[in-house]
Amino acid sequence: MDNFDFRNPTKIIFGRGTEARVGAETALHARKVLLHFGGRSVKASGLLDRVTASLRAAGVEWVELGGVVPNPRLSLVHEGVALCKAHGLGLVLAVGGGSVIDSAKAIAMGAKTDRDVWDFYLGKAEPQAALPVATVLTIPAAGSESSTGTVITNEEGLLKRAVNSELIYPVFSILNPELAFTLPPFQIACGAADILAHLMERYFTTVTDVAFMDRMLEATMKTIIAQAPLVLAKPTDYAAWSEFMWAGTIAHNNLLNTGRVGDWASHDIEHELSGIYDVAHGAGLAVVFPAWMKFAMHRDVARFAQWAVRVWNVEMDYFHPETTAREGIRRMEAFFHSLGLGTRLADLGIGGDRLDEMAAKGTDGNQRTVGNFIRLDQQAVRQVLQLAV
Amino acid sequence: MDNFDFRNPTKIIFGRGTEARVGAETALHARKVLLHFGGRSVKASGLLDRVTASLRAAGVEWVELGGVVPNPRLSLVHEGVALCKAHGLGLVLAVGGGSVIDSAKAIAMGAKTDRDVWDFYLGKAEPQAALPVATVLTIPAAGSESSTGTVITNEEGLLKRAVNSELIYPVFSILNPELAFTLPPFQIACGAADILAHLMERYFTTVTDVAFMDRMLEATMKTIIAQAPLVLAKPTDYAAWSEFMWAGTIAHNNLLNTGRVGDWASHDIEHELSGIYDVAHGAGLAVVFPAWMKFAMHRDVARFAQWAVRVWNVEMDYFHPETTAREGIRRMEAFFHSLGLGTRLADLGIGGDRLDEMAAKGTDGNQRTVGNFIRLDQQAVRQVLQLAV
Repeated sequence: MDNFDFRNPTKIIFGRGTEARVGAETALHARKVLLHFGGRSVKASGLLDRVTASLRAAGVEWVELGGVVPNPRLSLVHEGVALCKAHGLGLVLAVGGGSVIDSAKAIAMGAKTDRDVWDFYLGKAEPQAALPVATVLTIPAAGSESSTGTVITNEEGLLKRAVNSELIYPVFSILNPELAFTLPPFQIACGAADILAHLMERYFTTVTDVAFMDRMLEATMKTIIAQAPLVLAKPTDYAAWSEFMWAGTIAHNNLLNTGRVGDWASHDIEHELSGIYDVAHGAGLAVVFPAWMKFAMHRDVARFAQWAVRVWNVEMDYFHPETTAREGIRRMEAFFHSLGLGTRLADLGIGGDRLDEMAAKGTDGNQRTVGNFIRLDQQAVRQVLQLAV
Repeated sequence: MDNFDFRNPTKIIFGRGTEARVGAETALHARKVLLHFGGRSVKASGLLDRVTASLRAAGVEWVELGGVVPNPRLSLVHEGVALCKAHGLGLVLAVGGGSVIDSAKAIAMGAKTDRDVWDFYLGKAEPQAALPVATVLTIPAAGSESSTGTVITNEEGLLKRAVNSELIYPVFSILNPELAFTLPPFQIACGAADILAHLMERYFTTVTDVAFMDRMLEATMKTIIAQAPLVLAKPTDYAAWSEFMWAGTIAHNNLLNTGRVGDWASHDIEHELSGIYDVAHGAGLAVVFPAWMKFAMHRDVARFAQWAVRVWNVEMDYFHPETTAREGIRRMEAFFHSLGLGTRLADLGIGGDRLDEMAAKGTDGNQRTVGNFIRLDQQAVRQVLQLAV
């Protein structure tokens, strides 16, 4: 186990009807906020009205900024930053899923600097301050409601880049599983794939003596695998949604990577995919991860076999651990298929014609590698993408 | 799953040599602190010298208060409160195990009130403020290094009582597994029993639809069961200690009881035991818990069977789940024996002559019940104690 620092200060407010507390909780931090959201669904569902009623009752004023899209855009972030500065706003309240929250985090950092916030995503500078961020979560998937991460897409060049900073841990996040009842099946499936991917990125590590967190990761993976089919079958299953939603948050709140170094190559490669083709992040991960596994499993077959046995209930073939590992990958692919997701680029309508371009962009023209379990150079990224064709 | 709020702001600083950071971390909160510890061991090991060197280097002044004993006493807490008030101290730094930390938390609350701090333990008042508490942990067991709890014994009447408050989450805790290398085997065994008990108190709940946290609790129990024999066999096994220590913290940091109500009857009953007989808390729990299980299992045999299968690898007897459950309890008792712990009152040198007294004290003369899985009145507590004879 590696040395580590861990602290997650986000207050989780979980359960039925908890969005009614958003005003009182917000008022502890600010009196005038940016209310940030996506499109129709939060209006149609009446959620936005409930949130603004709660804010009003608590004496909190707000400025609205809707229009966040999946793979959230830098241009809207710039708008939000300008609004925060112009109106002296003291908190960014995200009502939505990971895209809205990631956009809110970007705005929160941008509001406290004279730089272009994109500099942080390019690694040109480190954020030194941020407005507090708070969330009302509607989509269990990205884990951004209790994470240090934000991913933004710059439309100029379709560059998708991430920032990690403790400054953008939300101060509170409201998680009401009922808010997920109206999600379309495809979005549920993408959420399940995203959460599983967060867990697998952490699971596949070269750090040894990490037995405790292995088991915690397996416990969380098994939860998603058990609950995702239930919520797809019955979208109003509160019990199943509550397990799914809480597991999705824990998957990405930095606890489960304590003492170890995750891989993250699949995420990086998927970012190139969704940067160019604008596919849903979870759908992209369901394609990239199996390919990455087939490429990477020889680095540590025992770890893949343990995963296959403990997470996918594969019977261990002690004489042929690789057979066990491969069966685990096969079951994961079957699981994605059962959710309605594809596991090949062709399933996303993507051909093999821009693999070189993605491999080059993902490695800055072979100037950097991606991943830690195996460090992938441009050629290796190209090979992983080829396995996904 | 029940609605819940969860927030744990303690910064965990984990790994080899991390006690060298205590000065710099303390200086973020206070310039003059109470340095609180137990007896010889932290001096003999040189730990106290390393801590004071780090404080000095960071420009932090301190007042020393040693002498904390297991089942920490109210009289020393009063001394600490007086020192904090007399010297205007700004933080209580605990260097030691759960007893030292619990004592530090009591002092931290007492320093910020004009009341007798014991009032909080008697439930006569709620704490409204506390000095920040920080810890350098030497004994993985109580979980107090990242919890809201503190348990103090009032020598007058040998009353052992608890307070839970978010005010006393430590601001940081330094966890260096190397500091546990010198623990005597009995203390290691008691720590393992205490940690397992924290997990089992949470596990045995009547709240339904708690599958995710069930699995997380099982993962943590399996970690302790796997690692405790390793550290007993080789006290300098850093890898095993690091799993054990981190699992001990997570077991009690409030994450694993999210959405559920734990039982805690065994802890309450053990408090009566150690209040009167001054036995080690973990040793007492290894006696009380099996007895409680035999009394309580009929409330939900399926839950006990799940625990036996998943935690103790018992093969499920689908036709006789109670047989499965009983085999789980048997394996737990065998595990405690393998650590060198007894599982009967007689093993602690305790006869059956004061069972009535303990049952009466534990229920305030049958004025309250203990436990949630089953609510035990005075007579039921007496029956549990009888099963432990």
